[in-house]
Amino acid sequence: MKTLSENKCFGGVQGVYSHESTATGGEMTFAVYIPPQAKKGPVPCLWYLSGLTCTHENAMTKAGLQAHAAEFGLAIVFPDTSPRGEGVANDEAYDLGQGAGFYVNATQAPWAPHFQMETYIATELRDLVQAQFPVSIHHGITGHSMGGHGALTLAMKYPSQYRSLSAFSPIANPSQSDWGRKQLGAYFGGDESLWTAHDAVCLLKEKGWVEDILVDQGADDQFYDLLKPEALAAALAETKTAHSFRLQSGYDHSYYFVSTFARDHVAWHAARLK
Amino acid sequence: MKTLSENKCFGGVQGVYSHESTATGGEMTFAVYIPPQAKKGPVPCLWYLSGLTCTHENAMTKAGLQAHAAEFGLAIVFPDTSPRGEGVANDEAYDLGQGAGFYVNATQAPWAPHFQMETYIATELRDLVQAQFPVSIHHGITGHSMGGHGALTLAMKYPSQYRSLSAFSPIANPSQSDWGRKQLGAYFGGDESLWTAHDAVCLLKEKGWVEDILVDQGADDQFYDLLKPEALAAALAETKTAHSFRLQSGYDHSYYFVSTFARDHVAWHAARLK
Repeated sequence: MKTLSENKCFGGVQGVYSHESTATGGEMTFAVYIPPQAKKGPVPCLWYLSGLTCTHENAMTKAGLQAHAAEFGLAIVFPDTSPRGEGVANDEAYDLGQGAGFYVNATQAPWAPHFQMETYIATELRDLVQAQFPVSIHHGITGHSMGGHGALTLAMKYPSQYRSLSAFSPIANPSQSDWGRKQLGAYFGGDESLWTAHDAVCLLKEKGWVEDILVDQGADDQFYDLLKPEALAAALAETKTAHSFRLQSGYDHSYYFVSTFARDHVAWHAARLK
Repeated sequence: MKTLSENKCFGGVQGVYSHESTATGGEMTFAVYIPPQAKKGPVPCLWYLSGLTCTHENAMTKAGLQAHAAEFGLAIVFPDTSPRGEGVANDEAYDLGQGAGFYVNATQAPWAPHFQMETYIATELRDLVQAQFPVSIHHGITGHSMGGHGALTLAMKYPSQYRSLSAFSPIANPSQSDWGRKQLGAYFGGDESLWTAHDAVCLLKEKGWVEDILVDQGADDQFYDLLKPEALAAALAETKTAHSFRLQSGYDHSYYFVSTFARDHVAWHAARLK
């Protein structure tokens, strides 16, 4: 693991690191915020998964999460959203390929060799963070948009790894949305029955989630139709999953929305990880 | 004035606007955050001046100021750092010309026709903001690095316009620094006696500041030698100016530093503007 930068922030350290990933077959960059409380011992760890076109950097610089992490004593991990670099497949569209890994393990060419983000996040980077940083074994997960999809689906796929779960305006039902059908088709092929294992609404119905879930969604989100929050709200109620689903009047899809409710999410995870 | 974007944020509105500026002879972009309290009447207004290479956008997205502005009920204005565009003089260096206006009115070619940032900020944009947004006549000013220099010098040049003053790691003594000598020489010519009117340390000694000043400076600032905080600390004490100068252990020059102490500055201004 290489240290690319470390900056003191709210009494803790915001670092950016890189490492050679076995899962994705290349160099991956990620960021970790370690709060001041970690000087006294391991702290719980919240994973923040970002949306389409993002890297580790967007949420790290724009979400204001460090202030809340320092207040509540959580570490935060900001992974990248896909493999990158020469030799890694890509697409001209912003919503497929690099910057759009969808947190799944692709099985189809040309994506399969590097697009193994599910294993990367849930296993490889998890092990690395656990080994290299003063974090406890208590991890939670959240994310925004495609990262909200990632948080919901990874939590349900790996329930023993994540004790707390929330999402900001997640892509909730990708198998029924243009933010999902193209990507699941590319990464898994045309057999739609394979897609539901990577769709939060379907997973809620098939596997469920034993803890509770916090979801914030902007009512004026410009991508509302692509996110399918109504399908998520219905599935949460239908499956009797304990949750708080908040439709926030006037808010859009931007980081102005995420930053506004970031403290509520950190507090939510802190209460459940301690 | 044109509205480029508006996003709901912490119950208020983060907007980006542009207008044709008489002072700088071209189109200028700026941002304003209006907190939720403004629905009930005019709110005090804090000006945040940015540093070298920045636009209106850096602090708007990275400083986390909106959360505090919403908490304390202040509007925040984020101006650009220079005129821009075709026909506007520039220099290959990052620290002269576009992105580096130093908040002064240049008298020398090729800068004089557009680089009139002092008049732009203190008069033209002030009048525009006063006319177009629900802000009271109580204004404060702060800034980072070159913007800290701008805040300190504009406040002392226009004491009737600014009732509260603070700065993050300001360029404190530009007439004695490589962050200043080149620029003051370019904008005002070689007569160094003309430079002191645009140097916070010199202005403190010549004109002073009747209110108090908050200054935060990172002890591990990578530009410490260029900023001359020791000259500012000495001048504040020598002139018996009421102030709080805080050297913050371990912090550097980045927005991780600014965001960490942003709430203290907003609280400082709010207490003095109400």
